[in-house]
Amino acid sequence: MRVYNFNGGPAAISQSVLERVANETLDWNGTGMSIMENSHRAKEVVDMANKVNQDIKELLGLSEEWKVLFCQGGASLQFAMVALNFAPNGAPCDYINTGLWSTKAFLEAKLCGAGARLAASSEADAFTYIPSEFDFSKDSNYVYLTSNNTVRGTQWSAFPKNAPAPLIADFSSDFLSRTVDFSPFALVFAGAQKNLGPAGLTIVLVRENFLQKGAKNIPHMLDYHTYLEHESMYNTPPVHAIYVSGLVLDWLKNSIGGLKAIEKINRAKAADLYAAIDDSFGFYRGTARKDSRSLMNVTFRLPSEELEKNFLSLAKKEGMVGLNGHRSVGGIRASLYNAVPVEAVMALISFMKEFQKKNG
Amino acid sequence: MRVYNFNGGPAAISQSVLERVANETLDWNGTGMSIMENSHRAKEVVDMANKVNQDIKELLGLSEEWKVLFCQGGASLQFAMVALNFAPNGAPCDYINTGLWSTKAFLEAKLCGAGARLAASSEADAFTYIPSEFDFSKDSNYVYLTSNNTVRGTQWSAFPKNAPAPLIADFSSDFLSRTVDFSPFALVFAGAQKNLGPAGLTIVLVRENFLQKGAKNIPHMLDYHTYLEHESMYNTPPVHAIYVSGLVLDWLKNSIGGLKAIEKINRAKAADLYAAIDDSFGFYRGTARKDSRSLMNVTFRLPSEELEKNFLSLAKKEGMVGLNGHRSVGGIRASLYNAVPVEAVMALISFMKEFQKKNG
Repeated sequence: MRVYNFNGGPAAISQSVLERVANETLDWNGTGMSIMENSHRAKEVVDMANKVNQDIKELLGLSEEWKVLFCQGGASLQFAMVALNFAPNGAPCDYINTGLWSTKAFLEAKLCGAGARLAASSEADAFTYIPSEFDFSKDSNYVYLTSNNTVRGTQWSAFPKNAPAPLIADFSSDFLSRTVDFSPFALVFAGAQKNLGPAGLTIVLVRENFLQKGAKNIPHMLDYHTYLEHESMYNTPPVHAIYVSGLVLDWLKNSIGGLKAIEKINRAKAADLYAAIDDSFGFYRGTARKDSRSLMNVTFRLPSEELEKNFLSLAKKEGMVGLNGHRSVGGIRASLYNAVPVEAVMALISFMKEFQKKNG
Repeated sequence: MRVYNFNGGPAAISQSVLERVANETLDWNGTGMSIMENSHRAKEVVDMANKVNQDIKELLGLSEEWKVLFCQGGASLQFAMVALNFAPNGAPCDYINTGLWSTKAFLEAKLCGAGARLAASSEADAFTYIPSEFDFSKDSNYVYLTSNNTVRGTQWSAFPKNAPAPLIADFSSDFLSRTVDFSPFALVFAGAQKNLGPAGLTIVLVRENFLQKGAKNIPHMLDYHTYLEHESMYNTPPVHAIYVSGLVLDWLKNSIGGLKAIEKINRAKAADLYAAIDDSFGFYRGTARKDSRSLMNVTFRLPSEELEKNFLSLAKKEGMVGLNGHRSVGGIRASLYNAVPVEAVMALISFMKEFQKKNG
């Protein structure tokens, strides 16, 4: 029996995608082999990877100047790559700190020798909001931000205007979940394991002219030039993760109807769940400031940790899993990524009402 | 219809493993989710990863001082990590150059600022053999070698004795294919996509006391300490690749009977194919010196490139794929990794005899 999967990531994948993965496991695309057994240089695999590349650009409406790269190592490796490529030798760069992941990105940039400084931070208020005032440096190479914050349940709705440098952003947890105007951005990356596919693949979108300005003489696997010049096949890429991501993109395009359609669904799911929280007379308390609430990760608390424990345990019994908050903050977190269906959210809301009735 | 898969990597996986993968795609281990949808911090996933860790140590007979780490980025990222961790700031290290991959490792070490020098090389003879005489530095931090050379079809049978420093080796293409005495080694790594599982996972075996000597203050995802301290879960690891690798290990242990059993099978497969080459009266010509021949990658040429083209095209029609040599050298390469069954080799040998009869 399939459960309702509210995992923060790795996260839910559409059942129709998984059914196709299962059916193709012994013989993919008429090759007589699993996708895992095919050479990454076989024409069928190269074509498949190119299709993933094109579908991402098409879904996001990216112009020709944007390149899609397939990396490994997750956002954590991007934290280092961004700094090594675009702020080498102490070059200045600005970071906006909205939580655990941007803190890590900032510290990693410093570790890599970048001249990283904070242009804004909501740390003093426990990262409960997205800042709207910034102290940008004038000579920054880039301004870094985290588009959606999985731990504290906040999300940028409008990105900084008039930043003095191009934006670089970690979109790991809201990639492909809504339409975004990428004009202020130069580079965007996303671990696949939230809205796209299995862990082990990181998508990088980068403007070619920005990439070309990047440092050279850094290790090949950390140098964006390597991925551009070799079409992400300098060495063997994570073929299976690219393949599953391709099926998810196909589902998003053809079953859902693209980004506008999924955004509408995602906004409705989040609105319903936040309404259930706000209408609970304080039994459930959202942790993020209302103007900064995430459409992807709905974080809330109950009157006591004991009730939270009971809530999680009962929910699991009713087939709703992954509702625990991030281990660094506790509480409840319902992640409502693209593949979490409306009925899962409806089931959760009913459960919450029932739970409050018994324990409120 | 399944084909006979002689791919150089990604490569064949046992059909029994793939059948289990297919069956578990919608509901892994009773979780009601695919393995790709499970949190990497869920107990079931952590237990699964620990089992993979233990099975590798058990199969290889490694003592407690050895640690198994799960990395990403393939051997190419290890080329940089080895140098950054163990030969920082120009520290001396020796490389033995036996082909494309050790050349890349050597150049990457230099790029990373290591004091890398060559202790031996078979480049002048087109990498057709494994050197047996070495000009080791006295002050090296390590001696680096590539255990099996996929491009030229050579393999170390006995490793250097009396090297003045611990050995570090790239075992990507013969990992878990034979018993190895790891006593002269301090670190060994292997991309999963030959004998172990899908691309996207790199196994690192390292002695803990050696690891502890490694450099600090390098990017987290390039620092072996990070993987040790966080049990390879500093960030989301490539869970699906670890899972499939676990099933392959289970197959190797319980269906095949372990390393001695697979080594016997591998030796027999290679012996039969090399005999077919050597008994062809020069129609098929092995490219590696006999004392350096690989059990994993059997490389050979035909009298002309035209015949090679016909050979590959006819073989494919008969359901034998992946027989093309590496794109840098051409010719024919039959990769006989663990999951390539004896009957595939028998079929290839019959085909070769038939082809020679018609074209010899």
